[in-house]
Amino acid sequence: MKLNENYKNVEESYLFSLVATKVSQYTKQHPEADIIRLGIGDVTLPLPQPAVNAFLEGAAQQGKSESFHGYGPEQGYLFLREAVRDYYESFGVHIDTEDIFISDGAKSDVGNILDLFDKDNTVLIPDPVYPVYRDTNVMAGRDIRYLNANMENGFLPLPDPSQKADIIYICSPNNPTGAAYSREQLKAWVSYAKEQEAIILYDAAYEAFIQDPDLPRSIFEIEGADTCAIEFCSLSKTAGFTGTRCGYTVVPHTLEREGMSLRKMWLRRQTTKFNGVSYPVQKAAAAVFTPEGLKACREHIAVYRENTRIMAETLKRLGIWFVGGKNSPYIWLKCPFGMQSWEFFDFLLEKANIVGTPGSGFGKNGEGFFRLTGFGKNEDTQKAMDRLQNLL
Amino acid sequence: MKLNENYKNVEESYLFSLVATKVSQYTKQHPEADIIRLGIGDVTLPLPQPAVNAFLEGAAQQGKSESFHGYGPEQGYLFLREAVRDYYESFGVHIDTEDIFISDGAKSDVGNILDLFDKDNTVLIPDPVYPVYRDTNVMAGRDIRYLNANMENGFLPLPDPSQKADIIYICSPNNPTGAAYSREQLKAWVSYAKEQEAIILYDAAYEAFIQDPDLPRSIFEIEGADTCAIEFCSLSKTAGFTGTRCGYTVVPHTLEREGMSLRKMWLRRQTTKFNGVSYPVQKAAAAVFTPEGLKACREHIAVYRENTRIMAETLKRLGIWFVGGKNSPYIWLKCPFGMQSWEFFDFLLEKANIVGTPGSGFGKNGEGFFRLTGFGKNEDTQKAMDRLQNLL
Repeated sequence: MKLNENYKNVEESYLFSLVATKVSQYTKQHPEADIIRLGIGDVTLPLPQPAVNAFLEGAAQQGKSESFHGYGPEQGYLFLREAVRDYYESFGVHIDTEDIFISDGAKSDVGNILDLFDKDNTVLIPDPVYPVYRDTNVMAGRDIRYLNANMENGFLPLPDPSQKADIIYICSPNNPTGAAYSREQLKAWVSYAKEQEAIILYDAAYEAFIQDPDLPRSIFEIEGADTCAIEFCSLSKTAGFTGTRCGYTVVPHTLEREGMSLRKMWLRRQTTKFNGVSYPVQKAAAAVFTPEGLKACREHIAVYRENTRIMAETLKRLGIWFVGGKNSPYIWLKCPFGMQSWEFFDFLLEKANIVGTPGSGFGKNGEGFFRLTGFGKNEDTQKAMDRLQNLL
Repeated sequence: MKLNENYKNVEESYLFSLVATKVSQYTKQHPEADIIRLGIGDVTLPLPQPAVNAFLEGAAQQGKSESFHGYGPEQGYLFLREAVRDYYESFGVHIDTEDIFISDGAKSDVGNILDLFDKDNTVLIPDPVYPVYRDTNVMAGRDIRYLNANMENGFLPLPDPSQKADIIYICSPNNPTGAAYSREQLKAWVSYAKEQEAIILYDAAYEAFIQDPDLPRSIFEIEGADTCAIEFCSLSKTAGFTGTRCGYTVVPHTLEREGMSLRKMWLRRQTTKFNGVSYPVQKAAAAVFTPEGLKACREHIAVYRENTRIMAETLKRLGIWFVGGKNSPYIWLKCPFGMQSWEFFDFLLEKANIVGTPGSGFGKNGEGFFRLTGFGKNEDTQKAMDRLQNLL
């Protein structure tokens, strides 16, 4: 019996548990404190009503013989894949329904896609970034190279032609920095990936927050990406599905390496190790893409966007450097007075009763930075920014 | 870029598509034929009403801010893990809630659990069996040895002490044969696994069909199994969740190898590559384990059981050898007149308009055998058996 020894190399992330511990210690000592949480990465608004209605209908169908749905297609129901295809079409991207795979969320697929690759590949991952990219590759024993994201490149690193790469992670708009790549920058990545014969794993989980029409919402807006990229997307942030669970992954049928079709491999992986997403959840997800559903989502996103607008204005007034916000629910700021990430965390908690997330928890280049999120309430965010203004 | 070349070695299974093609060809030529399908592996009765009610309540909660559930625990909500714990307790097995992991179905976990093991392990798989065990290991490039299940051992192979093994698959009651291991037989497997320092991956997806009180419903009824086994279970067949998706996996905290805790490894795997099951689905699943839920499930299972009783009686009368049926929704019979599996398939389809599943599709030892399932309607099953009686 040999276990997968690579698990010994996965570092435990104590980021959010340490945040929770510090906050609970503080509130124990200061029970009167009115804590405002701007560190939360989860949505707070409920599912849009059209999705709830469809969800209820689907659940009721499961209770009657004549409308009951047993095993569904592992790849997802065609009605939902067509809805996703039409959604892509709405911003000018043509995707075949056979290339769309419905999942229980982007996190599952981002992790499971690695089944398709040999251990022996060079992986390129930005730093700082969503820790799942790193951890899933450490668990598989792969060689990881980091891309330095920093103030100089606006936390949007570009390819270094001398760097070898087989698998490239891009998250845009980025978690945690909120920075989003322009069309020209993504073109550079696609061109580099093609030279390297690498595959880009593109995480578009925050695409719905993009409001600047010049910014691409999908890697497939870039010519040639269909021969070098896989895209992951999620309804978690678009439509509040964090606890309802539904996402989708696009593996173009034109994507081939070593004479093998990645789409066929992924289909084989999913039909063998997955059994599809709950039918009522797929009904709810399809309702998100109706005109009423999209309208309701836009209204929810507008609430979150107002929060990032409030935060951005305050930071500008205070002369604090930041990226993100406009096209993302995240704002990534440089800690004032040259503070380290955790130092600023303690400072904000003690002096202003505001909770945020220390940037150092997302990679070494995150040290000295701090993440604020727009998922709170407008009035709380305003109050927190008033406190920050008074404090600094 | 190196792809996972093991995918080239996974044989395409054309079993169910070939069945579908043959049936559609036949009905095209004989549009008047009254086909009865006894090959289906999916349930036909809807979700039990208590589960539907809880599902609707959960979906409605997701539409209101005050009751909305965002990201839940990756391991599953405690309310459901407690319900699963109490269910095990009802047949005398004590499991800690921390050892229970809620999943979107046994198929996902049975596949994903292999992440915890090195490529270099010897895998023991019964033949015939559910193809996922074989395919997931072929995809990982592991060395597979097959356990011969046949008429001599009643399709319940026992360990051969001279055979080395690291990972052992047991499915009881078995898919496709319906044969179920006795307590003594499982003791032999646990004792062998401990000698080999192997781990048993125990698939208990059909445990709810066991009616013989002497047969164990969980591997954890056997002393010592908590140091050598992982158990997978599902609500698919227990409560009609095939299209609603929920299951659970038990990884005992007492299960260790090479100084590593398998429970901790699985927790790490799930927190990194999974984001929990839809909250309303977990609500529905918890309702299955209430007294009303269990009563409704028993009523549904009684319908399926009546089908297998009807089939078993007919086969006995006809003097056809079979296993399964009593403690399982499957009946596994020896094709009469020495026919091969596909030969009998064609014979039954043409002469009696009955569709079943050729045993050869589940492994080489399945040749000459045939699977019938109890998931149809009582009147259809009776009609099919009347036709069989007249035919033979």
